[in-house]
Amino acid sequence: MTLDSIAIILFNEFETLDVMGPVEVFGRLDNCKINFISPSGLPMTSSQGVTLETIRVDKPRYKHILIPGGQGTRPLSQDDRYIQWLMKQFEFADTVISVCTGSALIAKTPLLNGLRATTNKLAYDWVTSLNKKILWQPSARWVHDGKFYTSSGISAGIDMSLQIVNDFYGLNIATDIAIKMEYIWNQNPKHDPFEKVII
Amino acid sequence: MTLDSIAIILFNEFETLDVMGPVEVFGRLDNCKINFISPSGLPMTSSQGVTLETIRVDKPRYKHILIPGGQGTRPLSQDDRYIQWLMKQFEFADTVISVCTGSALIAKTPLLNGLRATTNKLAYDWVTSLNKKILWQPSARWVHDGKFYTSSGISAGIDMSLQIVNDFYGLNIATDIAIKMEYIWNQNPKHDPFEKVII
Repeated sequence: MTLDSIAIILFNEFETLDVMGPVEVFGRLDNCKINFISPSGLPMTSSQGVTLETIRVDKPRYKHILIPGGQGTRPLSQDDRYIQWLMKQFEFADTVISVCTGSALIAKTPLLNGLRATTNKLAYDWVTSLNKKILWQPSARWVHDGKFYTSSGISAGIDMSLQIVNDFYGLNIATDIAIKMEYIWNQNPKHDPFEKVII
Repeated sequence: MTLDSIAIILFNEFETLDVMGPVEVFGRLDNCKINFISPSGLPMTSSQGVTLETIRVDKPRYKHILIPGGQGTRPLSQDDRYIQWLMKQFEFADTVISVCTGSALIAKTPLLNGLRATTNKLAYDWVTSLNKKILWQPSARWVHDGKFYTSSGISAGIDMSLQIVNDFYGLNIATDIAIKMEYIWNQNPKHDPFEKVII
């Protein structure tokens, strides 16, 4: 299986680095096309003022999907029609990746029920309150269970993305990308310096 | 002095995270407006396929300027008219920040002559060959000298941006941003795990 394309779901008030960390990692692969998508096809603006065009998607067509976090997840978690759209996209995909509070929006579907997952540690109480059937991990930089990869806050998405490259293409390619990014890769998903925030 | 606005210079084939790491950090400050600028005012696309609108700037008007690196710096380093435009912007500014090979474009002006600076370690030979009057530092996560902050490759821009927040607003605010980003901040500019690449 190859990461020939990744669809990144955008909404207003997404968190910039939740998206751009993974874009930097996956964008360094040969032939990995990154698509920004939404149900409306409108441009979306991050909480830090970055505006990106999106492709309108109704019927699911992407096998690898990433959903970022950010303030925008709060109203969307109450939007049933949006959650139904997400549910269709996630059901169709082979790989579903969340960064930060993106996991809140997956948690509004039943797809993570019974599986292990994690989320932003500063928003931990809110996200975990949305679905008690998920085996939430309070100390994890990221978690891989089933077809889901869920990471902790913002920067953890970079560590997780490198792990995903490792899982698809091996350690040499992942390490090469980390070195070219001059990124101090935390390769151990159990090393979570931010767990203390909630303990 | 406050960071009420930062202008980020964009060009085609900029490196995504060189821009978006600092955008995440500075975008978390209260009232720091981020402007993407260029001499043409055209949209610019990163090497990872991220397209951003830019504001056309001729006469300099920004006091804090950041220039990213990326493949696009190679042809621009040979473009005298572009370098003249950069020179005007940098001369006007109180703070000039480069990430990665962005320092190559500063090096094409005489403004860094006699000052310490650093750059991407994988592109070190090329960048340093452009101007031998700069006191290039082979082992440095970032360097602050005069009004210039220059960082090593890509991810080092995040460490440096947090340091800039520290310098303007103090350690508490910088640390708060790092924690909210769940970012493992390398606070020591002399700790450069990638120096080995060139030694």
